[in-house]
Amino acid sequence: MEGALRRSFEPLADPLYDLLRYHLGWTDPHGQPAPPGVTGKALRPALCLWACEAVGGEVSQALPAAVGLELLHDFSLIHDDIQDQDRERHHRPTVWALWGQARALIAGDALRILAEQALLAQEGHHPPLPHLLRAADLFARRCQEMIEGQYLDVAFEERLDVTTEDYLHMVGKKTGALFAGAMELGALLGGGNQAVVAAFGQCGRLLGTLYQVQDDVLGIWGPAEATGKGPGSDIRRKKKTFPIVYALEHAPPTVTTALRHLYQQPTLNDTQAVQVVKLLEGAGVRRKAQEAAAEMGHRSRKPVSQLGLASRYLREYEELVRSLLERQS
Amino acid sequence: MEGALRRSFEPLADPLYDLLRYHLGWTDPHGQPAPPGVTGKALRPALCLWACEAVGGEVSQALPAAVGLELLHDFSLIHDDIQDQDRERHHRPTVWALWGQARALIAGDALRILAEQALLAQEGHHPPLPHLLRAADLFARRCQEMIEGQYLDVAFEERLDVTTEDYLHMVGKKTGALFAGAMELGALLGGGNQAVVAAFGQCGRLLGTLYQVQDDVLGIWGPAEATGKGPGSDIRRKKKTFPIVYALEHAPPTVTTALRHLYQQPTLNDTQAVQVVKLLEGAGVRRKAQEAAAEMGHRSRKPVSQLGLASRYLREYEELVRSLLERQS
Repeated sequence: MEGALRRSFEPLADPLYDLLRYHLGWTDPHGQPAPPGVTGKALRPALCLWACEAVGGEVSQALPAAVGLELLHDFSLIHDDIQDQDRERHHRPTVWALWGQARALIAGDALRILAEQALLAQEGHHPPLPHLLRAADLFARRCQEMIEGQYLDVAFEERLDVTTEDYLHMVGKKTGALFAGAMELGALLGGGNQAVVAAFGQCGRLLGTLYQVQDDVLGIWGPAEATGKGPGSDIRRKKKTFPIVYALEHAPPTVTTALRHLYQQPTLNDTQAVQVVKLLEGAGVRRKAQEAAAEMGHRSRKPVSQLGLASRYLREYEELVRSLLERQS
Repeated sequence: MEGALRRSFEPLADPLYDLLRYHLGWTDPHGQPAPPGVTGKALRPALCLWACEAVGGEVSQALPAAVGLELLHDFSLIHDDIQDQDRERHHRPTVWALWGQARALIAGDALRILAEQALLAQEGHHPPLPHLLRAADLFARRCQEMIEGQYLDVAFEERLDVTTEDYLHMVGKKTGALFAGAMELGALLGGGNQAVVAAFGQCGRLLGTLYQVQDDVLGIWGPAEATGKGPGSDIRRKKKTFPIVYALEHAPPTVTTALRHLYQQPTLNDTQAVQVVKLLEGAGVRRKAQEAAAEMGHRSRKPVSQLGLASRYLREYEELVRSLLERQS
């Protein structure tokens, strides 16, 4: 996977691509090779390749899609960091923090194209063209949903009436769409029929939602190293994460009144963020979030369990859900 | 074309798409229907449809690509306005000026996806799949070049050693790529063979370069209404437009020394911008730019003139080049 990703960058000589090599963790800000260990988790490619194998395909059939998915995810991160004005990710300066917003925006746009090209390249592989077009269409639609979700995420910052249902709709798009797309593409390119592809999609959507709820929890209570963003950045920007939305909807009136009062500010300062965390802790929201994530993991088993997959894949799936629920970074 | 474009938006209900309807000139900032006359020139779609007909195809074969090209162009404008911090376009506030950078960035990303989907949709038409995939690949590659050109454009702002050759390379990508792609897609979908598609591509690249040189001239000397951006905004931001690059390379030493001195500032104020315009006028650069554009128009005739097109299309081509050279807005 890493090899295929790096190979796809070899012909790209324009200085613009140096920003992408940096973002992908291959180089430092001066273009020198970076120490290993700063690349992402490559979770979406892993789900894609796993789904391909689980339906009886060869990993190599889904490799171009897996590369495309990782680049698509990275495109969204580069633009996200501009939107949220985040200066750090994985303990490194973000692309815009180093090169400015204009260049970072362009770099993100370029990565979106490379993602699509990686999917279509299919070097050495020749899936039936209708398959390939369906894959391209799926890729575009899931990307569109992701972008719609990002928009809702930004729009929610200014609202105090976001319900858990609104949250789940937003997150199902923002994070769920690409997880769904990863599993759908894997199943499709591995030879799965429409019903199989749809089942993997449902499963992926739930896993993505679970992943985001955990992300929200780690953003508040995780070790600072987990997010590489500094604690409380979601709270300071009034992001409508699961814990906040849940508390505003279900906590006792004393808590919700105090939260609403704090959220009148355009942004929160560090002291106010600490007050918010205390209110959330008092309302037992952290445990509620973990219960919600566990419930999603449980529900996600159903669609795949009915497909008659080999027991090895069912075991691997259990292991995957467990690792997502237990992750600390 | 306008009808097809509007139809493609009908199913899009998310609030995000209201920003795009505004950008496309269909609504005002409050979502109410806008008075007619604020939509763009739709030059790229026109070139695409013309090329399709010129090679013997039906306009309808190239319509999805024409819609896709217009959306791709609009995607680039929304992001460009963020990059350049331009608050007005066509005498209306830009998307980021109304809704903020985060939402505008996301809206641009969404438009990029819609562009690709418009091309692939081909409602009612079923071009051979290898054709459609070649069209999608061409679309992505020209978009990639455009983005590479935008990056060079931004990078050139800080440089004083940009040569005319560097400029032509940048502009051939930034503006030429999409003009080339428009004519290539039209010729491809109209049934042209590889040599025909390549000839239209060369022609489009030169037309796009000509168009940009004229744009640079209009940005300095055009009526204020032409650009809708306010005069001298390129100069204040030290954009390496044709007049500046040509003057820095070919004007007498007194002029180049004065220009270089002014361009030491991070950005130029209004007084300094007026000084720059006077220096350019003294060096006769405006006429030089017009000669260069005319020369590109002349060279662009060659590739198409050798294809044995019907005389009607050759006449229309002459008319097109003339109108591009004479445009005042």
